[in-house]
Amino acid sequence: MITEAAKKTVTPETLLTAMSWRYAVKKFDAAGRIPADKWAALEQSLVLSPSSYGLQALKFLVIEDKDLRAKLRPASWDQSQITDADKLVVFLVRKDAGPADVQRFVDRISEVRRVPAEMLEGYKQTMLQSVSLPPEKVEAWLTRQVYIALGNFLTSAALLGVDACPMEGFDKDKYDELLGLHAKGWKSVVVATAGARASDDAYARNAKVRFPLSELVEHI
Amino acid sequence: MITEAAKKTVTPETLLTAMSWRYAVKKFDAAGRIPADKWAALEQSLVLSPSSYGLQALKFLVIEDKDLRAKLRPASWDQSQITDADKLVVFLVRKDAGPADVQRFVDRISEVRRVPAEMLEGYKQTMLQSVSLPPEKVEAWLTRQVYIALGNFLTSAALLGVDACPMEGFDKDKYDELLGLHAKGWKSVVVATAGARASDDAYARNAKVRFPLSELVEHI
Repeated sequence: MITEAAKKTVTPETLLTAMSWRYAVKKFDAAGRIPADKWAALEQSLVLSPSSYGLQALKFLVIEDKDLRAKLRPASWDQSQITDADKLVVFLVRKDAGPADVQRFVDRISEVRRVPAEMLEGYKQTMLQSVSLPPEKVEAWLTRQVYIALGNFLTSAALLGVDACPMEGFDKDKYDELLGLHAKGWKSVVVATAGARASDDAYARNAKVRFPLSELVEHI
Repeated sequence: MITEAAKKTVTPETLLTAMSWRYAVKKFDAAGRIPADKWAALEQSLVLSPSSYGLQALKFLVIEDKDLRAKLRPASWDQSQITDADKLVVFLVRKDAGPADVQRFVDRISEVRRVPAEMLEGYKQTMLQSVSLPPEKVEAWLTRQVYIALGNFLTSAALLGVDACPMEGFDKDKYDELLGLHAKGWKSVVVATAGARASDDAYARNAKVRFPLSELVEHI
């Protein structure tokens, strides 16, 4: 079935050009700004990210406060992206996710699709089973969903011609403390910075290193 | 810095149209085929997926064998996507990742960038530290990288107008057994099916349920 929306697609060449163009930016142009319409689209793409069951036990913190960013930098191995990138997004996962998160989502489905909550009972029970696993398993599972959003964000940014850098090298406990996350029921998972690469970022000129397709993709 | 490649970008509207168009397909058109150039691009996009350090301790198994797919279906809650989608990809993570994986990657950097391995010693030591953490932590970390590839794949597919369905609902041990993964040093992580939605897949008509942007994205 070809829908109208499906006709508005990109070519394989456009996709691969964007993905080859992107790299983990080491040095941002501190004066570089992402056009407002592109940033708005990137925020929407975060919202539209798929997650298991659609549960969305996650959140995206966009840190605008310069002082706060200056405080986060030493907790990020002093990497310059934290202060120099136009945008800094901290990806969060729900802490101690449980029945209340499931209920909130069920209520949202009911609201958006205008279906009575009773019709969603089976789906709800399945989700309740998933969140009743040991807490560390639930958190690991929900954290993986956050990484779907990260992958989506990086690809979306590349397609819009926005530079980005995913960052795992930061002190999560320190972030959680500086951002007051625990008390609000959240934990920091991963960071993405976005903006414009500095013209003298030597990393931009490095050849992209990937194993050959013949090693990474196997057909059986 | 505006590079040539950056000029070949998509508009925010194209990105968001694609992301709104996609959904987790429940029923594929069993006769639907993905055009070869689009599938080739999707395999390349998997290869180009970012991962921590660029280590790529992962692999993508594309299951063509119909008999094998029939055997995997009962291990996947009997979901029809496993046999009806044009493509079935099992995303794998390296089992017991360690120094050999780091060395293999360092050798690859050295080969692609034509730099002596000695120049990569610092980077190598950092990676060796990461893989020397307790095995379950290393596996959880590398598994999260696989989810970046999943997010990238789903967004890439949507942009190419290719339908897809991510699937966590399968018996990993059974998959590992049927695919003979452990002996080869791999573990199944997550599945993605891709093809064309059936014209009567009722799920295609469901409104997409997301929490409002004002709840998922917070500016501070």
